[in-house]
Amino acid sequence: MAEFDLIVIGSGPGGYVAAIRASQLGQKVAIVERENLGGICLNWGCIPTKALLKSGEKFESLSHLKDYGLAASGATFDFDAIIQRSRGVAATMNKGVAFLMKKNKIEVIEGSAKLEKGAAAPKVVIDLKAGGSRTVEAKAVMLAVGARAKAIPQIGLEADGDKIWAYREALAPKTMPASIVVIGSGAIGIEFGSFYRALGAEVTVVEAVDRIMPVEDEEVSKAAQKAMEKRGIKFRTGCKVTKVAKAGKGVQVAIEAGGKAETLEAEICISAVGITANTDGIGLEALGVNMDRGHITIDGHCATNVKGLYAIGDCAGAPWLAHKASHEGIHAAEYIAGYKTPNVNSPIAGCTYAQPQVASVGVTEQGAREAKREVKIGRFPFRVNGKAVAAGEIEGFVKVIFDAKTGALIGAHMIGHEVTEMIQGYVTAIAMEATEEDIHGIVYPHPTMSEAMHEAALDAYGRVIHL
Amino acid sequence: MAEFDLIVIGSGPGGYVAAIRASQLGQKVAIVERENLGGICLNWGCIPTKALLKSGEKFESLSHLKDYGLAASGATFDFDAIIQRSRGVAATMNKGVAFLMKKNKIEVIEGSAKLEKGAAAPKVVIDLKAGGSRTVEAKAVMLAVGARAKAIPQIGLEADGDKIWAYREALAPKTMPASIVVIGSGAIGIEFGSFYRALGAEVTVVEAVDRIMPVEDEEVSKAAQKAMEKRGIKFRTGCKVTKVAKAGKGVQVAIEAGGKAETLEAEICISAVGITANTDGIGLEALGVNMDRGHITIDGHCATNVKGLYAIGDCAGAPWLAHKASHEGIHAAEYIAGYKTPNVNSPIAGCTYAQPQVASVGVTEQGAREAKREVKIGRFPFRVNGKAVAAGEIEGFVKVIFDAKTGALIGAHMIGHEVTEMIQGYVTAIAMEATEEDIHGIVYPHPTMSEAMHEAALDAYGRVIHL
Repeated sequence: MAEFDLIVIGSGPGGYVAAIRASQLGQKVAIVERENLGGICLNWGCIPTKALLKSGEKFESLSHLKDYGLAASGATFDFDAIIQRSRGVAATMNKGVAFLMKKNKIEVIEGSAKLEKGAAAPKVVIDLKAGGSRTVEAKAVMLAVGARAKAIPQIGLEADGDKIWAYREALAPKTMPASIVVIGSGAIGIEFGSFYRALGAEVTVVEAVDRIMPVEDEEVSKAAQKAMEKRGIKFRTGCKVTKVAKAGKGVQVAIEAGGKAETLEAEICISAVGITANTDGIGLEALGVNMDRGHITIDGHCATNVKGLYAIGDCAGAPWLAHKASHEGIHAAEYIAGYKTPNVNSPIAGCTYAQPQVASVGVTEQGAREAKREVKIGRFPFRVNGKAVAAGEIEGFVKVIFDAKTGALIGAHMIGHEVTEMIQGYVTAIAMEATEEDIHGIVYPHPTMSEAMHEAALDAYGRVIHL
Repeated sequence: MAEFDLIVIGSGPGGYVAAIRASQLGQKVAIVERENLGGICLNWGCIPTKALLKSGEKFESLSHLKDYGLAASGATFDFDAIIQRSRGVAATMNKGVAFLMKKNKIEVIEGSAKLEKGAAAPKVVIDLKAGGSRTVEAKAVMLAVGARAKAIPQIGLEADGDKIWAYREALAPKTMPASIVVIGSGAIGIEFGSFYRALGAEVTVVEAVDRIMPVEDEEVSKAAQKAMEKRGIKFRTGCKVTKVAKAGKGVQVAIEAGGKAETLEAEICISAVGITANTDGIGLEALGVNMDRGHITIDGHCATNVKGLYAIGDCAGAPWLAHKASHEGIHAAEYIAGYKTPNVNSPIAGCTYAQPQVASVGVTEQGAREAKREVKIGRFPFRVNGKAVAAGEIEGFVKVIFDAKTGALIGAHMIGHEVTEMIQGYVTAIAMEATEEDIHGIVYPHPTMSEAMHEAALDAYGRVIHL
């Protein structure tokens, strides 16, 4: 007889949110966590990086006080205090999850889980943190085991706890590095580069493909690079990293670009080349779980091919974003509890909290072109938006992509001040299947930077007002 | 024969946007402006106040550097530089409108317009700024004449260019006042109070009704008052102002509360008791234009009862907001050009850019109750939102109101950091007739403060995750 209705393995946002939702639906739920409640996101990812970035952003803004008629002298930062603040924020979040588990009567089992063949669902054998082991059975098992920083040991690209960092080391260093080579220009690499640059480090970002932030629209990549170069970050795109090695008091990063070899030197190397799903060593092979390039294969309800076994979030494939994981977690919890829901399918935005911020949802112009979709494209720069001028935040633009045949909004790309808080409006529009006519009719409040979202949509149809 | 297809009178956002839209549709357009292109909004309203508020906000943030691991000493402001920056922003916007008029081949006629009986539409007789007069005929005339600060001369509440200010004087004073009594706690009064308080003035806000920001939801009023009291602003609600008079080097404001008389003293009094539509002296009576309590009566296409005469924006009634004016202007321009559009009808958000900001759209809880609508209400505080904690911006909350029968979102109320940029997501949801199920299915990106918008909607249906 199954002890629980649902066991969730992994307590990142996908996992703990799924557990809460299942509990709301009357299910008896346990959650297994091998390290910190809240997973990477709350403890070593999304949340503590945002705390660092806010300190960096505030520090940088002290250089621009004069623009606002203000002055202050001797601007300094206490690196240790910045790091401790970030760790404190993570600790608060971690305690918050513990509180939520208790409140929702979810049993937290601390330890490492492995799966074995079971009845309704695989059995979960937990190597307990406190010692010993416990085997738990449930009607359903949900894998929310997440991912970790990818290492490439063949070329020495592997966190060494000293000069070569991945996100964990970069989040809690003992001293502020003077110079950094960041490998990888996705959100993680760009955010760390932005933070350390704001505090004055020499930062070089190396990217294998020919533009930074390769998942973003090309125009955004270009504008982001320009804006960050203005802040002193150096970029090396189209560069293959051939070797990373400690050397003297720092690190050497050998790169190859256009057949030419070169060596970059810095105090620290941050590896941000992607992630590896935590799917090894938990018994998936023996159960015959279908996998696709390291990720667990799931159907439209997050079910694997093994009876009673579900998977959500990073371990089940891209995009590797906490909100995608939570969304899948809620969907799967409802499905397991007997809800007849349509397949999980909702537009997922991506956000990068650098200076400037980048946020996007849906297709890029390049993606639309490759898919041979006829599109209407509109753009609007913040430099002619009244609120942006008043706030002194004129960097960046909004770009939108409509399907030319149906008029449906299919992509939105934003770069600029706090666009990560604005993108939800476009996410809502896409989720509601808004057309250009709908968006033209929406009244964006004045004076806000969000008015640029309206103007970009007008521009796509030759009706822009302020250009 | 009419010289123009359309004459727009007044070049505030409603007027100039309507003129541009008409021009886009191939109409021959003129615009009449008696003072500054861009009207009050760009020159003496929305835009320059936002510039001031940004300076005030940045100055206040210098008191909280330690929270972020930062330090600076001797924080000061240059009052004149702050004011000049704001004037500069207004001048930039004003030039921008001049550029747009030229680019769109709209003839700008500087002068004061009066209407007389005409053929297709009233004739427009313009007392030219440059001297002389000009009579212009068009197929349609659009009044976008706006409004001005309301004065109550019987009690001395009238800007005197010295100690009693309305928004114009408050936007460009010569010296920083040490103490201010603000009369009226709508958006304008609260914004000025917030700005001057941020720079250190003693500020008392007097409000006639029993709560501040009376158009907002009661819970928002209460939270806003508490948050602003924490910053040192004093509030006197339920107070009738009986007399305002200069006295010595300052001003005395006599008030009555609960039958008790009292006199408040300050260096400056700012009058923010509302607005009066600029409908006098332009010949409306002689034409027989229907009016309602000082505002021009319009139908669903912004048409008045007089053939060929339209009215939009502040002069045609509440809400007195620039984006409502622009929306009406575009609608009327399209209607005049022959578009068969449904009646103008789109949710209009209201924003107050104080610290903290307030933004709302749709019905309040009180409004729903008075209309005897059955509702579902959800709330979510920013203090448990991960991004808010990471950013140190935990003040405020989100409150949403759904129609219990249909599940439609009918009201949203936000108070907190930069909520004015977030509200457009709810505006989009209401415009798209989103139900609770729709909003529950939308994936708000993580980590953002906008996730609180999702949680509030979940809370309304007993499904909140992080509470």
